[in-house]
Amino acid sequence: MSHLRQNIITKDWVIFATERAKRPHEFARPVEDLRSPIPAYKSNCPFCKGNENPSEIEYLRLEDERGWRVRIIPNKYPALSPLGDLVRCNEGIHRSITGVGYHEVLIENPHHNATIALMDIRDIGDIFQAYRQRYKIICQDKRIESIIIFKNHGESAGTSLEHPHSQITATPVVPSQIRQRLFDAANYFDDTGECLFCRNFADELKAKERIVLETEYFVTFIPYAALSPFHMWVFPRCHSSCFGEISDLEIADLAFALKTVLAKLFYGLNNPAYNFTIRSMPTDSGHANYFHWYLAIVPRVSQAAGFELGSGMYINTAMPEDSAKFLREL
Amino acid sequence: MSHLRQNIITKDWVIFATERAKRPHEFARPVEDLRSPIPAYKSNCPFCKGNENPSEIEYLRLEDERGWRVRIIPNKYPALSPLGDLVRCNEGIHRSITGVGYHEVLIENPHHNATIALMDIRDIGDIFQAYRQRYKIICQDKRIESIIIFKNHGESAGTSLEHPHSQITATPVVPSQIRQRLFDAANYFDDTGECLFCRNFADELKAKERIVLETEYFVTFIPYAALSPFHMWVFPRCHSSCFGEISDLEIADLAFALKTVLAKLFYGLNNPAYNFTIRSMPTDSGHANYFHWYLAIVPRVSQAAGFELGSGMYINTAMPEDSAKFLREL
Repeated sequence: MSHLRQNIITKDWVIFATERAKRPHEFARPVEDLRSPIPAYKSNCPFCKGNENPSEIEYLRLEDERGWRVRIIPNKYPALSPLGDLVRCNEGIHRSITGVGYHEVLIENPHHNATIALMDIRDIGDIFQAYRQRYKIICQDKRIESIIIFKNHGESAGTSLEHPHSQITATPVVPSQIRQRLFDAANYFDDTGECLFCRNFADELKAKERIVLETEYFVTFIPYAALSPFHMWVFPRCHSSCFGEISDLEIADLAFALKTVLAKLFYGLNNPAYNFTIRSMPTDSGHANYFHWYLAIVPRVSQAAGFELGSGMYINTAMPEDSAKFLREL
Repeated sequence: MSHLRQNIITKDWVIFATERAKRPHEFARPVEDLRSPIPAYKSNCPFCKGNENPSEIEYLRLEDERGWRVRIIPNKYPALSPLGDLVRCNEGIHRSITGVGYHEVLIENPHHNATIALMDIRDIGDIFQAYRQRYKIICQDKRIESIIIFKNHGESAGTSLEHPHSQITATPVVPSQIRQRLFDAANYFDDTGECLFCRNFADELKAKERIVLETEYFVTFIPYAALSPFHMWVFPRCHSSCFGEISDLEIADLAFALKTVLAKLFYGLNNPAYNFTIRSMPTDSGHANYFHWYLAIVPRVSQAAGFELGSGMYINTAMPEDSAKFLREL
């Protein structure tokens, strides 16, 4: 019989449908989907080294003697813009705000064929150094309420550009989903005096069965009520509510942890499409004892349809314990 | 400049990115995606008339002198089952429940190539008659907290079977998303003494610019903060919190309204994939003055990626007023 589990942090209920369960390797991308090798340089790729647009704004550049290593530039089709005034309009039941914010692209590597799963640890560290620098600068803009850093890898994860890149967005509102989670986490703290997130990963460390990787500063595990197969959370061991507070030592360790788990997906499931996102405290809330930032990875091995749309619930056809064992042993 | 709007019913903030806006017809499915005509019968389709499995349970059958018109059967790979006990287990911060519930398939028509956009109104009415009958029966099961009826049309909307069908699911929990919306709607009622949903569509009728179709008992419009292009809500004009209360007259009118708007999508956007879902009061709440059932249609003309995953917000590249005008005039 199937069963339901609740994710205590997101409050989402997930149905674990064992009747249609697959074995972990069955989620691998079919071999016929694997494309021919990607070249290190493409002449028509705007992100490749040598193709930079000299008139383009550059928000950040990390470089060494061989040239740039990571760049942050404006998104060509920005959903939000830092120019203009923040104007809020309430008319009857309608609420609107001008699209003030940030929408930037972080080019992760000069090489077209680089991918985090196979990159040097140092290069991955550069990506997180750049995220942190830009995060701290955007935080100072008082109009910004929330910063969302994310990556889309592969077409079915929503990217149209092959060159490795991620995006930094900053919105003038706290998204309602995040507001609700903050509220629930604060309630838990008020009730118990502990951070729900710290409690959650301490429990996972004791139970062991959903752990994928333990490193010095991070714990990677599949949540008890994972939304989908191989859905992973990378948690900093030290309590911190804001990604901007990450230390250099933590960045080096996170680079290693992320490379390791993404390499497990790359080799174990034939380089599946995935999204990752950094979930951090909204910028206006400062340090909080009740909230804990983390990085979530969602491989695109299953598809949300009408049930998910109509209920906000998910059906997962893989047990988190089996998926974690598969990834742990790879 | 882009702007953000809040959907007052779901509380979701949506970014309207006018910089990357497309004209309505640009969302049409490419013609090369259109498959060769689908046959009226396929020998290997388990849902085609003549291929019924005689040993299969049948929960409901509507028929006339020519045979069955609509059937409801168990899902072959059910996520939930009515057999077994409802057992709840709370262990530390973990919550789980046995997978008690319903997961059924409604075969919408004997013919393999039927599609609601082109079906007879009477045949569509039969589908809703069958939904209502089954909804009322499942409601009586005291273990059930929520019933979700939905349809996946087309591969990118998550269906693997071509034969027209929809699904009825019933869960032993109220999904957290639905619970939150009920709570917000009840708060609005307590504040104002009015149903937020009634107020919303009364405002839409006055504004006119987002209306797609008005019929005797229903109003179809694109929400002020639509999640995606052509996201539509079909609202009953008479206040009712529960889909099970729909009358025969309303069913006949809904069949006409749904056919009309789906035909607009079919002809205007080359038969795009879509999901629809009926959003109704959870079964344990009975009649409520503050909640209003409705049918939501989400054509799959855009893709959710890391931003949506990380924030719960959406980016919409079409203005609801433009999409509604396009559909209204088709």
